[in-house]
Amino acid sequence: MAAVARITAVDTYDIRFPTSRELDGSDAMNPDPDYSAAYLVLRTDAGDGLEGHGFSFTIGRGNDVQVAAINALRQHVIGLPVAELCADPASLNRTLVGDSQLRWLGPEKGVMHMAIGAVVNAVWDLAAKREGKPLWRLLADATPEWLVSQVDFRYLTDALTPDQALELLQRGRSGRVEREARLLRVGYPGYTTSPGWLGYSDEKLTRLAQQALADGFTQIKLKVGADLADDIRRCRAARTAVGPDIRLAIDANQRWNVAEAITWTKALAEFDPYWIEEPTSPDDVLGHAAIRTGVAPIKVATGEHVQNRIVFKQLLQAGSIDVLQLDAARVGGVNENLAILLLAARFGVPVCPHAGGVGLCELVQHLSMFDYLALSGSTEDRVIEYVDHLHEHFLAPVTMERGHYRAPREPGFSAQMLPESIARFSYPDGGFWAADLARTEGTH
Amino acid sequence: MAAVARITAVDTYDIRFPTSRELDGSDAMNPDPDYSAAYLVLRTDAGDGLEGHGFSFTIGRGNDVQVAAINALRQHVIGLPVAELCADPASLNRTLVGDSQLRWLGPEKGVMHMAIGAVVNAVWDLAAKREGKPLWRLLADATPEWLVSQVDFRYLTDALTPDQALELLQRGRSGRVEREARLLRVGYPGYTTSPGWLGYSDEKLTRLAQQALADGFTQIKLKVGADLADDIRRCRAARTAVGPDIRLAIDANQRWNVAEAITWTKALAEFDPYWIEEPTSPDDVLGHAAIRTGVAPIKVATGEHVQNRIVFKQLLQAGSIDVLQLDAARVGGVNENLAILLLAARFGVPVCPHAGGVGLCELVQHLSMFDYLALSGSTEDRVIEYVDHLHEHFLAPVTMERGHYRAPREPGFSAQMLPESIARFSYPDGGFWAADLARTEGTH
Repeated sequence: MAAVARITAVDTYDIRFPTSRELDGSDAMNPDPDYSAAYLVLRTDAGDGLEGHGFSFTIGRGNDVQVAAINALRQHVIGLPVAELCADPASLNRTLVGDSQLRWLGPEKGVMHMAIGAVVNAVWDLAAKREGKPLWRLLADATPEWLVSQVDFRYLTDALTPDQALELLQRGRSGRVEREARLLRVGYPGYTTSPGWLGYSDEKLTRLAQQALADGFTQIKLKVGADLADDIRRCRAARTAVGPDIRLAIDANQRWNVAEAITWTKALAEFDPYWIEEPTSPDDVLGHAAIRTGVAPIKVATGEHVQNRIVFKQLLQAGSIDVLQLDAARVGGVNENLAILLLAARFGVPVCPHAGGVGLCELVQHLSMFDYLALSGSTEDRVIEYVDHLHEHFLAPVTMERGHYRAPREPGFSAQMLPESIARFSYPDGGFWAADLARTEGTH
Repeated sequence: MAAVARITAVDTYDIRFPTSRELDGSDAMNPDPDYSAAYLVLRTDAGDGLEGHGFSFTIGRGNDVQVAAINALRQHVIGLPVAELCADPASLNRTLVGDSQLRWLGPEKGVMHMAIGAVVNAVWDLAAKREGKPLWRLLADATPEWLVSQVDFRYLTDALTPDQALELLQRGRSGRVEREARLLRVGYPGYTTSPGWLGYSDEKLTRLAQQALADGFTQIKLKVGADLADDIRRCRAARTAVGPDIRLAIDANQRWNVAEAITWTKALAEFDPYWIEEPTSPDDVLGHAAIRTGVAPIKVATGEHVQNRIVFKQLLQAGSIDVLQLDAARVGGVNENLAILLLAARFGVPVCPHAGGVGLCELVQHLSMFDYLALSGSTEDRVIEYVDHLHEHFLAPVTMERGHYRAPREPGFSAQMLPESIARFSYPDGGFWAADLARTEGTH
């Protein structure tokens, strides 16, 4: 064991699951995703056996580019002292975002920024494991002052200053003990997208919607935007299946221009949709504001593709959204998501995170639970997306009970995949893909 | 020769120039760039010896990630019929932007989007070579209808419809013959950033500013934003060197928050800056609008890091900018830049492209010359950035005369680098870097 334990390796893996073969995850923009993870493991010489795990989520092709981006950050991480790093993940976050040459490839967006998120999240996973706490508890136990020190306020101060953030966090602590007891008892509410994929038949949709009710969910979501007649038929089937009291969200996955978004959404209004999600480009702050005005009282939601805190800031400033859908793996990691949670709290907009994919449910539950315990103080109108895919590949998968995420008890960020899953689904040399390739070649 | 000529190869190169050693290109955010190109060559079996060249510009580290992203597009390009591809580059543009799996890595931003731009630009280079025309002339000779067919209007129609674009292009043709004669006689006005890098001494700044005057430039630009006292001293030296009649632009390279941008810019107002460039994050549409109000009558300019047409649309809708600085290699290539030129024309905002770097001057001159001949119809308040770096590596480098870009006569997009430059500066195995590595190892 070394005198000062350091990061000794950043090992990366290109992991892909063949989800496209079942049309799981199919929507108006993504007909055939292969849910994938550009995955990394931070190893140390601390001798305690702890590792930091993190990943970017992608949907197949290009996962290798995402891995290359994580590799490009390796030089900033190797050799860092573990205790200092875990005591102040913001310092690495600043280093990575501030690398003047890599910054050109964003700045703070797309492949390079998601890579930063993966590395930063792996540090938080390691930090929480070292504390012996699930991440939600590490964050909720931290002082407001330390949490503020973890946020990069660059480009935010016209909407949120450090003093304002501190005040929000100080106020947010009140009543935390009661809320934690409640969280441990009933969990955090979720909603399910499992019935709603475009590739499913009406019969499968109806069956899964009824199953969602039986499972205790009070909100489901349907993908829309490919064909209006189909959407009307599918929304009718879903509403019939769940009755009038269940919230039915719809999700267009960026399919529309502004005017089209308004017309199409209104054409589905008779089915009482709770929100319209990703009606247009995630970059279009002003477009979302126009859509929100045009479709009210149907709510507007977006965020899974919103690239960073600066765009979220503007979505809030412009009154573009009713629901903020942060994603644990799209932006620059926990540090930037703290900024986004604080912005949402400042503007009084509820956060309903995007999840699904590979491991996104596992990660994001920690952020919502922290938000509940130490910032928003409420689960009213707040739900975490839930999709019942691929959880079996994780060491500490999410647990649902009566439509609620159970609070994870295991130390860390729930990011760690099983070694056998990593080995089997590594692309293109893992067991599954090697066999698949052999089969494909056999057919020619 | 094949019956139908096809694309047979997409060869990629990681090319890096050691510019950081001279502090060329140093600014408040980029202290030590190594100007680099993630470069590609499209090869065909047409037997005519023509190739399509294109590249993404980066500033060093991460150029390998950018190359990986171009490689990820290869499968969409190999095998395409050359004549069809060159007759309708928009079809490939749509295919690349629409790849549902790669789209997750953006969408339409950062590494993946710049890679699309590099490939699409290489197609335009090949198309213009096959026509035997410089790209500016190929575009200016095209019909308005065909140009409109080359634009992706997704997410734009709330600001610009195909009919409106057509009308702008039909109106823009009027007087083209006279303008072309003038363009060939005097060229297109440029301005120079060469005096203004942060790393230069006041003496060097003064000498280069006076040289710029002697060279016929009527606008120069200074980097600012690292230290206000330094900026005041440097702006004073520059204004003294050039006198009151030369335009002096300043460029903060995204250094500031909104309030800071206003205060700092106003503190330099006594030196009569023409525009403040990149005062804050390129993602901050609303921030730029606030800054523009706060610093008027000093103009606000941005664009070199603006990720796509959707953000440009909003910068124009919100009245955030006085000057639109498109970049030839940041967005999805010529097709998206046609959309951006049309948006600028629709809102009456002059386009003053970003250039410098590696080959950006070579590329972007074609877009401004097309804009002059067939769209804006004017060079008033319009200048292309010029930096006297690295032109010697190109087969058809830009030619400046009395502060003007001469119209290129060679067929193509002026994107083609000399084979010996590619070989020498390929990283890490090219002659320069191999020798450099040997030297470095020798010192240990």
